[in-house]
Amino acid sequence: MLSERIGFIGLGIMGQKMARNLLRHQPINVYNRTKDRAAMLIQGGATWYDSPSTLAQASQIIFIMVTDDQALREVVLGDEGVLAGIQPGTLVVDHSTVSPQVTQELAERVRQRGGSWADAPVTGGDIGADQATLTIMVGADARDFQRVEPYLQQMGKRILHVGAVGQGQTLKLVSNMVSALNLMAAAEGLQFGLHQGLDLKDMETVMSFGSAQSYELSKILDRLKRDDFTPGFSVANRLKDLRLAIEMAQQNQFSADLGRCALPLYQKHAETGHMDLDESSYVKRWDD
Amino acid sequence: MLSERIGFIGLGIMGQKMARNLLRHQPINVYNRTKDRAAMLIQGGATWYDSPSTLAQASQIIFIMVTDDQALREVVLGDEGVLAGIQPGTLVVDHSTVSPQVTQELAERVRQRGGSWADAPVTGGDIGADQATLTIMVGADARDFQRVEPYLQQMGKRILHVGAVGQGQTLKLVSNMVSALNLMAAAEGLQFGLHQGLDLKDMETVMSFGSAQSYELSKILDRLKRDDFTPGFSVANRLKDLRLAIEMAQQNQFSADLGRCALPLYQKHAETGHMDLDESSYVKRWDD
Repeated sequence: MLSERIGFIGLGIMGQKMARNLLRHQPINVYNRTKDRAAMLIQGGATWYDSPSTLAQASQIIFIMVTDDQALREVVLGDEGVLAGIQPGTLVVDHSTVSPQVTQELAERVRQRGGSWADAPVTGGDIGADQATLTIMVGADARDFQRVEPYLQQMGKRILHVGAVGQGQTLKLVSNMVSALNLMAAAEGLQFGLHQGLDLKDMETVMSFGSAQSYELSKILDRLKRDDFTPGFSVANRLKDLRLAIEMAQQNQFSADLGRCALPLYQKHAETGHMDLDESSYVKRWDD
Repeated sequence: MLSERIGFIGLGIMGQKMARNLLRHQPINVYNRTKDRAAMLIQGGATWYDSPSTLAQASQIIFIMVTDDQALREVVLGDEGVLAGIQPGTLVVDHSTVSPQVTQELAERVRQRGGSWADAPVTGGDIGADQATLTIMVGADARDFQRVEPYLQQMGKRILHVGAVGQGQTLKLVSNMVSALNLMAAAEGLQFGLHQGLDLKDMETVMSFGSAQSYELSKILDRLKRDDFTPGFSVANRLKDLRLAIEMAQQNQFSADLGRCALPLYQKHAETGHMDLDESSYVKRWDD
């Protein structure tokens, strides 16, 4: 058993499963905006706190998994946020996918209180969270990485130290931009073929066994066949990540030309009533 | 042994291997613009003809595998082309990747001589051609498909009848458009990450095991690591196919928005001295 007192904030689909995997190896403090999400964990022995600040007072490593920049800022900077209770020497480990800039800003605020920050976004989805097979990409000082790595091993399979604070988010955004483009490419191709009178089944055979193959193609084909576009990973989240990637490109003078083309197309899909569907619903764009 | 007299025109990297697989099961007539490419086949028992027209006179099924629209038109319509020698009842089977319009035009010309046409483009590359594991997508009348299928089985693993004449090419172009977009997405993402100071190895781990995974990503990573951009599938061919797909979209009022964005980007890469490199050299675009 590792010896630090640890806490987990944000018990959504992903966070709940990740916290449970931590709880299997040591005690854990937990907080969530709505308490009912914590019920299973409390029943399993986790200690509930009524606010991020009180949880922070009682924890030496604080894991966070929330939706976006705004939610993260609130959890950290809010009246009863982490910053209001944090002790010197505490390490904040953020698993959310957010912008590198917000990461830098919050990391600096935590440093001013004598703590430190690691950004540690994940891939592998809810199945990876459940089975502790996540890939976790960590931006942190070497010492902080060493400190947190044993805990990350309890939640994931591939734990990578990819650079200084912010680089975890950078890699996540770059990777998600590629996913978004693959998703839109597969959707456009399948719809193009249907428009030309081809069978979905023939396209599946040719594309799945050829150079058009991708993870996102398989996902779309599966969703199309089941006609099921409940999220999964929502259009809102996909759009958020794509926008963050393009902003990062612009701020750093990188010519992400294809990504820049893609953003307004995906945005239009989001804004025509699909925000809460699965990301793969982009394939239905041509049906409207 | 099947009983029809068969011929093969176009003995490039792909055609040579496909013809050899046919020759394993029955005699075959062969023609190529340069005779030395036919040496191995002739040594193996194939019968050489000095022109497409003389080969056509001696063949009941004529397989063709050439580079593009222009080469195909020459082989079929040229002074000593297939059309000059074709017999009534002959089936022309075109494995080249060309436009659906040229396909329709040549099919009509062959029909006027009492013959018929099947477009049968392939995927699986030179390895698939060598090991007879190609996927072959056939646009043809049902009767013509039945007639040629046993021969296609000698060259491929998945033989699909995808529709009437032209539909094989349609599927190939759609599938290749998706490949092109995946290729450009992976290239843009990897270069973006490098630009932001990430390690290629970390990106490979995250992207290969996550939702950014694609056939083209793997190909680019392999080429980058070996720093080897000898074709393979050339930039010229990739550009040709992407252009044909976008032309097809425009002619059929399909909004291939992402593909339309991609075309000038890839074209610029081609026109800045990379035409004869492998398609994956697009990843070097940002180095210039």
